[in-house]
Amino acid sequence: MKSNYFTLTSIVIFIFLLFSCNQTTNQLPQAQEVFVTPDRPEGQKDVIELTCEPIDTVRIAIIGLGMRGKGAVKRFTYLENIKIVALCDVVPENVEKSQQILVENGFPKADIYTDSEDWKKICERDDIDLIYACTHWDLHTPIAVYAMEHGKHVATEVPAALTINECWQLIETAEKTQKHCIQLENCIYDFFEITTLNMAQQGLLGEIVHAEGAYIHDLRWLNFDEETGYWNMWRLKHLEKADGNTYPTHGLGPVSHVMNIHRGDKMNYLVSMSTDQFGMTAYAKEKFGEDSDYAKRNYQKGDMNTTIIKTEKGKTIMLQHDVTSPRPYSRLHTISGTKGFVQKYPQRGIALEPKAHSFLSESKRDSILNEYTHPIVKDIVEKAKEVGGHGGMDFIMDYRLIYCLRNGLPLDQDVYDAAEWSSIIELSKKSVTNQSMSIKIPDFTRGAWNKVKKVTYYKK
Amino acid sequence: MKSNYFTLTSIVIFIFLLFSCNQTTNQLPQAQEVFVTPDRPEGQKDVIELTCEPIDTVRIAIIGLGMRGKGAVKRFTYLENIKIVALCDVVPENVEKSQQILVENGFPKADIYTDSEDWKKICERDDIDLIYACTHWDLHTPIAVYAMEHGKHVATEVPAALTINECWQLIETAEKTQKHCIQLENCIYDFFEITTLNMAQQGLLGEIVHAEGAYIHDLRWLNFDEETGYWNMWRLKHLEKADGNTYPTHGLGPVSHVMNIHRGDKMNYLVSMSTDQFGMTAYAKEKFGEDSDYAKRNYQKGDMNTTIIKTEKGKTIMLQHDVTSPRPYSRLHTISGTKGFVQKYPQRGIALEPKAHSFLSESKRDSILNEYTHPIVKDIVEKAKEVGGHGGMDFIMDYRLIYCLRNGLPLDQDVYDAAEWSSIIELSKKSVTNQSMSIKIPDFTRGAWNKVKKVTYYKK
Repeated sequence: MKSNYFTLTSIVIFIFLLFSCNQTTNQLPQAQEVFVTPDRPEGQKDVIELTCEPIDTVRIAIIGLGMRGKGAVKRFTYLENIKIVALCDVVPENVEKSQQILVENGFPKADIYTDSEDWKKICERDDIDLIYACTHWDLHTPIAVYAMEHGKHVATEVPAALTINECWQLIETAEKTQKHCIQLENCIYDFFEITTLNMAQQGLLGEIVHAEGAYIHDLRWLNFDEETGYWNMWRLKHLEKADGNTYPTHGLGPVSHVMNIHRGDKMNYLVSMSTDQFGMTAYAKEKFGEDSDYAKRNYQKGDMNTTIIKTEKGKTIMLQHDVTSPRPYSRLHTISGTKGFVQKYPQRGIALEPKAHSFLSESKRDSILNEYTHPIVKDIVEKAKEVGGHGGMDFIMDYRLIYCLRNGLPLDQDVYDAAEWSSIIELSKKSVTNQSMSIKIPDFTRGAWNKVKKVTYYKK
Repeated sequence: MKSNYFTLTSIVIFIFLLFSCNQTTNQLPQAQEVFVTPDRPEGQKDVIELTCEPIDTVRIAIIGLGMRGKGAVKRFTYLENIKIVALCDVVPENVEKSQQILVENGFPKADIYTDSEDWKKICERDDIDLIYACTHWDLHTPIAVYAMEHGKHVATEVPAALTINECWQLIETAEKTQKHCIQLENCIYDFFEITTLNMAQQGLLGEIVHAEGAYIHDLRWLNFDEETGYWNMWRLKHLEKADGNTYPTHGLGPVSHVMNIHRGDKMNYLVSMSTDQFGMTAYAKEKFGEDSDYAKRNYQKGDMNTTIIKTEKGKTIMLQHDVTSPRPYSRLHTISGTKGFVQKYPQRGIALEPKAHSFLSESKRDSILNEYTHPIVKDIVEKAKEVGGHGGMDFIMDYRLIYCLRNGLPLDQDVYDAAEWSSIIELSKKSVTNQSMSIKIPDFTRGAWNKVKKVTYYKK
């Protein structure tokens, strides 16, 4: 009797399983939830439009003084009400040069650090408000998390995180400590980008339907430069390690703000496709010879990666990444709305209804760009040009960071931006390595994406 | 004993099924084979580089004399060794105007047809070599199939097919009858496109890694034009019916030839994403009022569709379609190789190693375009400009069709091109309606994609 009962049960389960398996083959799969969103710990609050106590003089530590860090030191000497407290880099000459910049510009000397774990000591000090991290990519999240855990605000170079796990580390820590954690995404402040943000927000382009961003920049010469290239050739190693869009934030940041991502809309799923790798090997063969080590290495990173993102409100973002093909620099920055169209590369163009079938003349374009200059830029555009740093956008970024901290305002970027823009790295990799499978994008705000209705760069 | 045996069998199958189901949930799905490739009937041969008996005077019937057809009649009057035998359209004025064009240019009158099924009668005649079809989209495949079945070569306006099933109908019929069946894809003959094809084939751009094509053309005014727009507003109805890339061939054709698709490489899978629909409704509200019928209709077609295609050799093609957004016309035509880069829109640009970080000056660009003018264009470039038709490319297309038929040469396009480029319509729709799921692209050559190693436009 028992055996019969078991047989019967087996048959029922058998039929059920057969049926379920058939189901999956009859229906097409939809976007896959590869990365599960963790529950927000009880009592923990989101940090949408986080405000903190105003800081009269912002005490800063800069960690990482290579390519980006030294430039930051120089730019900070143009700002008032800041103090560079500490300088840190494992390369002593970088620290010395940075110290020299301070001294030459009449700033007091900073404390200097050169051991590889010194960034922890700096985060543990109690006389610092802001950790400004410009190290190689792998240290961005560890420094940011440790800094917040020790009561500091943190601004980190892009990308803030390399994995979805790191994205969540940043968010959990920011929410737990209620500290600012932003990426140093300078491109949102580039004159054309911030002006088009204002144009979009003023309704000149109608409802934004589709946007495009990119990081297309042939960096092979720098990646293969053993002398003056990246420290320890870390960026070359990343090209060997993984495929996908490995540097998405410069392209995605500006268009994300135009499209109010997690301020009324959110990214739902993506698909991503890479070419095979051709460019690195071709370049290495030409430069170092057919039999060179560089020519024989296995670079995982395909030359061109194209990713498409669908949002909750039915908009799309097309994102590209290519640092290994011979072609002119481009971040695309294309915005298509129901009343107009703009694109930055290969040349700045604006087209508006009812004559959107052709671009405005250069003089009309420039007069519109002038008219729509973003309010936060107006006061400092001249100084920004004087200071420079990617045409002034780096200075505006630092200026805004200090301005908002000093006035207790929400920062222009937040930790969800950092997570969303960086998350494309692992999400795109997952899609690429599964024949461009559609992958769900986590809601890093955990339900708070519709709390505010647009991106705001606050001004007192 | 028997019962025990059955129990044991059940348990084994149970465990096996459990394991298989777990497998599918643990592993991510890959590109889906939604459309199964039918076996080639025994004895049926492929038509790769098909050659047919030379035809001294090509006897032509033109079916569909609306927007495209009338232009074709006019262009044919510039060619020798052809005879327009029959003219057919359901709108009598179109037939009359076309007849008038013939007479005015000293050509003999053609037989005229105006009933909706008359195209069959024409195909059934025995004094015609070539059916030239310029009807609305839905009739392209039926006419092409019927024409071949009645021993005619056929050239049809784009897209040649609207479904995968129609693609196979074209191929099976072309292979069975060994007749030419091509799309009238004029953009492969546009001066910049055909010149960049030659540049690529001469090796100037190195190995081609990535390419982009598009059909971005705000056609709303024409789609809503009840008087002088498309016959019976057929194109508006298509916007109501389906999403995806509904008109892929102008963008895909030229880059497919640059990338030697089914001549050494083949398209393996695609992903496709559309925005929701905004543009049609916004336009209709503005033009016809909030409460108008047009403003209230449900247009399935999202404004911007982006599709990415991966090839067997690891290259990618990014393809866009947008006919409902206010923006300047663009077919992109971007080609990125290991030694250089070209793009046509928004302005023609060429960048070459070792200085590919910037575009060549206009004069250097033009001198290269001149140097690499394709051999088949050289002799007729002046006449093409004189005749016109999209800047001359339409004339070159007709010229080449007649030239190859008269000389018994393979045509520049073949039935596999027609199927591949048209297949994007249903493949992209399938992907879009399944959250951009990755979809396998059928090998329409059924194994013959590597038989020849490059695209050739033959010349005697």
